[in-house]
Amino acid sequence: MAFGWIDEQAELRRRAGLVRTLRPRPAESPLLDLASNDYLGLARHPEVTEGAARAARTWGGGATGSRLVTGTTELHAELERELADFCGFEAALVFSSGYAANLAAVTALAPHGSLIVSDAGNHASLIDGCRLARGTTQVVAHSDPDAVRKALQTHDGPAVVVSDTVFSVDGDAAPLARFAEACREHGAGLVVDDAHGLGVLGDGGRGAPHATGLAGADDVVVTVTLSKSFGSQGGAVLGPARVTDHLVNAARTFIFDTGLAPAAAGAALAALRLLRREPERAARARTVASELHTRLTAAGLEAVRPDAAVVSVRAPSPEEAVLWAAECRAAGLAVGCFRPPSVPDGISRLRLTARADLSEGQIERAVRVIGETRP
Amino acid sequence: MAFGWIDEQAELRRRAGLVRTLRPRPAESPLLDLASNDYLGLARHPEVTEGAARAARTWGGGATGSRLVTGTTELHAELERELADFCGFEAALVFSSGYAANLAAVTALAPHGSLIVSDAGNHASLIDGCRLARGTTQVVAHSDPDAVRKALQTHDGPAVVVSDTVFSVDGDAAPLARFAEACREHGAGLVVDDAHGLGVLGDGGRGAPHATGLAGADDVVVTVTLSKSFGSQGGAVLGPARVTDHLVNAARTFIFDTGLAPAAAGAALAALRLLRREPERAARARTVASELHTRLTAAGLEAVRPDAAVVSVRAPSPEEAVLWAAECRAAGLAVGCFRPPSVPDGISRLRLTARADLSEGQIERAVRVIGETRP
Repeated sequence: MAFGWIDEQAELRRRAGLVRTLRPRPAESPLLDLASNDYLGLARHPEVTEGAARAARTWGGGATGSRLVTGTTELHAELERELADFCGFEAALVFSSGYAANLAAVTALAPHGSLIVSDAGNHASLIDGCRLARGTTQVVAHSDPDAVRKALQTHDGPAVVVSDTVFSVDGDAAPLARFAEACREHGAGLVVDDAHGLGVLGDGGRGAPHATGLAGADDVVVTVTLSKSFGSQGGAVLGPARVTDHLVNAARTFIFDTGLAPAAAGAALAALRLLRREPERAARARTVASELHTRLTAAGLEAVRPDAAVVSVRAPSPEEAVLWAAECRAAGLAVGCFRPPSVPDGISRLRLTARADLSEGQIERAVRVIGETRP
Repeated sequence: MAFGWIDEQAELRRRAGLVRTLRPRPAESPLLDLASNDYLGLARHPEVTEGAARAARTWGGGATGSRLVTGTTELHAELERELADFCGFEAALVFSSGYAANLAAVTALAPHGSLIVSDAGNHASLIDGCRLARGTTQVVAHSDPDAVRKALQTHDGPAVVVSDTVFSVDGDAAPLARFAEACREHGAGLVVDDAHGLGVLGDGGRGAPHATGLAGADDVVVTVTLSKSFGSQGGAVLGPARVTDHLVNAARTFIFDTGLAPAAAGAALAALRLLRREPERAARARTVASELHTRLTAAGLEAVRPDAAVVSVRAPSPEEAVLWAAECRAAGLAVGCFRPPSVPDGISRLRLTARADLSEGQIERAVRVIGETRP
């Protein structure tokens, strides 16, 4: 029977305790949220939701076509200008998701005959970008500039180094400045995904490349998401205008995808303007993460020191991680639970996200619940 | 210099007359739109835009996380239930784009050791799905069930046949029933992208698989977009629940992408309910396409007989196609212009889309402008 092999795989997953099921949430959840990527607490902010509503009314429910046909509105252009300006780049190009932006950046910037040096901890979308690109990929040890340097030495011709700025699983930051140095020694381009840096790191949330002095450099290309700190949906590629012009002409996920819905563009633009007005939100997200880490560690839990707003707590096994997260939920706390195959190293974790709008009392409650339910 | 090769490629494109540039459109365009994929004219319908606005207010500007963490709301579940029911499938799974839905379906259903038989006219997102999948891809002649049959004969083990139902470039329909027959002879699965069929073909717009009696079959999986007939953004995979459950566990663009924004889900749900109430919109889109074709042909133009709502008109060369589209625009008519590398056969065309809400006068005007500006 067609698809018969699916049932065998499902059975293997069941036996390994790795079955995933969706859990639809209500609009008003009684849970304290430390699971979402809404780092600045903007997804439900009235200015952001009104930005979405207004854009839908003004521009329609969808973009109606691909970006090169009818899918580019003046709203898209406005968002691209303001986003590029905020992050310190010459140009920006908006996509329907961060996943699509990463596929676009990696495939379009790694042509046939080129080398892609890819960090072992990279996000699935960067990895898929490497798989789709015509260039040859060399995966190097996690956050290791010497390994990057060594890989670049093996190659003559165009090369790019691809990395997350903040890794989603453990919340650790990449050694960006040293990656850039290695790139420049070899004339390679640097392509980094700032999904978890934008809104959290850098001056007023301008992101990790801005904080590292790499914003606007002609050999640096950055991807971001609009679905985390900006509380919306979508992604973008930031870089020199010659690079974004190249993507308009060469990136398949730009050319063959419907443009981002106006409501998402409107929500992201409202969030961006709000962050400009209230830059302290970025620092507050970092402070909350740091407090979470300090208190979890004090409680004897093994947590990774956060470089941004993700705090990772180790669990002994996938089964215990699932049970732990379930007990947190029963006690009114939503936490993420990462386990194989979503974690490259096979180690299961609770994944907590610090939100800028968490109160001291909420932080205290979260740490208490996590401590009391530990395996 | 990093990215130096980009300038050479840009220069080649310039010389070949193939440079693409974005043209942001205003909210109220004076142009008559025959370029968008808004087949039912619903993108600006007040029920659809209010559906988006209400969802943003109720659920927030974004889904806040991946579908398995915080990104599944009760609104997503509602949309999935109603969409599956409308199209006649057991289950549906919503994605942030049709592109992501296609990557998910093809990669998750073509494991290592499997064969993918892919129609030569398939959309870029299906092709990228084939490239990312672990199975081996065999590309077969366009809309050729015998070629499909022959390819399947070469393989033992899991196999899928992958095709658009309506091809975007020429608007021609795939021989779905005969593809299904070939699949069943060999126990292969059929995976079809109904992006241009949903809302236009089948009883009340239920799509090409429904029209062919394939809806709900346990060996058929369908992908759709919410960004065309439904005037919103996003995509979905429809099929047996065991297949969508498998995707929840195995499809990277499902697991590692932020969930679709509530506003897009709300707009799509409103469009779906509107289409249920006004099923005549689907037939009207087909009638408009047929009228456009008849009149263009009567005017001596070479147009492909439309199987859905896309009408393709041949142009002598890429340069003349661009000029033709520009002259249409100057005369108040927006038409699509497809040219290499977006067209696999290298033939440039004007691409017209029939909208259900075009009046007789507008159809007449469109045909007159296209005829008067022909190269």
